[in-house]
Amino acid sequence: MEVIKTLHDFFEIEVLTANLNSDLLIKQAKEFSPNAVVINDEKQYEKVKEALWDDNIKVFAGSNSLIDIVEMDSIDIVLASIVGVAGLKPVYRALECGKPVALANKETLVVAGDLMIQTAKENNAPILPVDSEHSAIFQSIVGEQFNSIEKIIITASGGPFREKSKEELEYVTKVQALKHPNWSMGNKVTIDSATLMNKGLEVIEAKWLFNMPLEKIEVVVHPQSIIHSLVMFADGSLKAQLGLPDMKLPIQYALSSPYRFPNDFPRFDFAGYPLFSFEAPDTSRFPCLALAYEASRLGRNIPCAMNAANEVAVELFLQDKIKFTEIPKIIEKAVIETDPVKANSIDDYLVTDQYWREKLRKDFA
Amino acid sequence: MEVIKTLHDFFEIEVLTANLNSDLLIKQAKEFSPNAVVINDEKQYEKVKEALWDDNIKVFAGSNSLIDIVEMDSIDIVLASIVGVAGLKPVYRALECGKPVALANKETLVVAGDLMIQTAKENNAPILPVDSEHSAIFQSIVGEQFNSIEKIIITASGGPFREKSKEELEYVTKVQALKHPNWSMGNKVTIDSATLMNKGLEVIEAKWLFNMPLEKIEVVVHPQSIIHSLVMFADGSLKAQLGLPDMKLPIQYALSSPYRFPNDFPRFDFAGYPLFSFEAPDTSRFPCLALAYEASRLGRNIPCAMNAANEVAVELFLQDKIKFTEIPKIIEKAVIETDPVKANSIDDYLVTDQYWREKLRKDFA
Repeated sequence: MEVIKTLHDFFEIEVLTANLNSDLLIKQAKEFSPNAVVINDEKQYEKVKEALWDDNIKVFAGSNSLIDIVEMDSIDIVLASIVGVAGLKPVYRALECGKPVALANKETLVVAGDLMIQTAKENNAPILPVDSEHSAIFQSIVGEQFNSIEKIIITASGGPFREKSKEELEYVTKVQALKHPNWSMGNKVTIDSATLMNKGLEVIEAKWLFNMPLEKIEVVVHPQSIIHSLVMFADGSLKAQLGLPDMKLPIQYALSSPYRFPNDFPRFDFAGYPLFSFEAPDTSRFPCLALAYEASRLGRNIPCAMNAANEVAVELFLQDKIKFTEIPKIIEKAVIETDPVKANSIDDYLVTDQYWREKLRKDFA
Repeated sequence: MEVIKTLHDFFEIEVLTANLNSDLLIKQAKEFSPNAVVINDEKQYEKVKEALWDDNIKVFAGSNSLIDIVEMDSIDIVLASIVGVAGLKPVYRALECGKPVALANKETLVVAGDLMIQTAKENNAPILPVDSEHSAIFQSIVGEQFNSIEKIIITASGGPFREKSKEELEYVTKVQALKHPNWSMGNKVTIDSATLMNKGLEVIEAKWLFNMPLEKIEVVVHPQSIIHSLVMFADGSLKAQLGLPDMKLPIQYALSSPYRFPNDFPRFDFAGYPLFSFEAPDTSRFPCLALAYEASRLGRNIPCAMNAANEVAVELFLQDKIKFTEIPKIIEKAVIETDPVKANSIDDYLVTDQYWREKLRKDFA
């Protein structure tokens, strides 16, 4: 919303969507006057409808409305920031309709990268990265279309438990896990940052977005989160994008690229960051990162199983049903026990997704 | 030479030049078989001629030959790496002939930026930066032609005396000054690095190369010399180019841009550089940087006077005739005492240059 306010000469909001938070949806709708809103939770349809009665805003409800609405001719670009596998179908539909998608939902590519990229190509619909790391890579390769990439280096803050020992990790709490040192994000992504699964998802996302083999994607821990990622080209030169840890800039760039519009977002200054540090990620303490590489190497529906297991494991951790260190164990189980099957549709992937959700929820009920 | 070996499928050496070092010139000529060589020191003409008698290589001598030879039709690009004001005329002639110039000679733009840029434009001759900092900026703005630059941040190693106090600087020796922490360069540039005059020259060079006002060019000390410089765009995003402190890469890029050719130069690895640090340059200990800004602000022939005074001061320091801390004092004198005069030709600039050389050499004879 802050980005759209900055870019009000160029963009207006056509449709707004929300999952459960109808109060915020109503508030935002009144401020930005979209043509339509979608509340995913159908039980809140009447409430939203009533609240926006006088505002001449169409109201829809339910996940199918979400899929239908991206078809609207008046939509020029879709910002997909639904968390988790719930984002798959709307993003897929948007790509089928040839809409550019500014993608904040990593799971879309993690679960169904092959189908998404193929559909995007067939319909000439660009996928524009919103994640700060992928935005950094996207910005670093601007104008380098002649040149091959030797490797991509994705930076990771290391999360709140970077310095905790294996033993200490057994006893960390969800309150500690939700305190991210640099970024202010939703609960799911914040826990993913603490386990480094977030970085694993980003590695897989980068593989699809930039058509890179996994062996050419590295992760380096950079606790200050200023260098957002780097690209090494065939001549050994590294290019990087840097800035304060603030999602407004990558969101703006996804909407405006290749143009850069002036804004008054806070500027990075070396005076505030006299030291950048770097270290290798430790996959013995944070196995999720290695599991993500492994799942992606196995391919087919294995990353989907991994992602479903992760979503449930994070949920269970946030419900105090499992310890922090059980998260990778649950994911490993899904990676090992899933029969690799080729998926021919989004629904095929959702079968694997559903299987692991139900199984794990039952196991830990 | 190492770069040309790497790029041997794309480049060959047409002409090689040297100032005094005829032995190296002969050795390189025998290895690379250029069409012609120029030895600046006319006294060594016979020696070089004789040594290359059987190699079918034309031999010329003297600074006028240097100026004439850049006109040769068979020359596609000129790498200008003569140190100091001696580089002016050959570079100017190359630009007049419409030859792209890969520019390692900072003084060319410091002394006569206005004439050089105008001539380059009129003859459609690109000036391609070779300095690692300017190469970093050049690489960072690739593909950003739609976007305005908010500022440029040039990194500086800080030189060998970065941590010396004002008092300690009174007693540093030339042996200490010649030990640069990161870069292996000629004596003149190494002393310039120790005084930070090198950074001052680079600020002025950046002003001309990238058409930036001085207020938008900052310097930050980064002792590890890995981030070679940064560009902040209108949206606040910073892009940077990074790599080991090794001139081969920027030389190669100047020759190959916008293409990047694979090479086996050593690669940067964060494992070897776990910390990057940054600090503001201290112009009370290193006044040369502030003097360069001031000279460039005054414009006209003042940067030329500053440069001449610096060249002589470095010479005097290397001859043990002055202390390290006298270098900025001599330069300040030239900046203050020169009457600002608009130069209409390279020769006009050379009058100012000659005046200060003679005056200072006499003063310290």
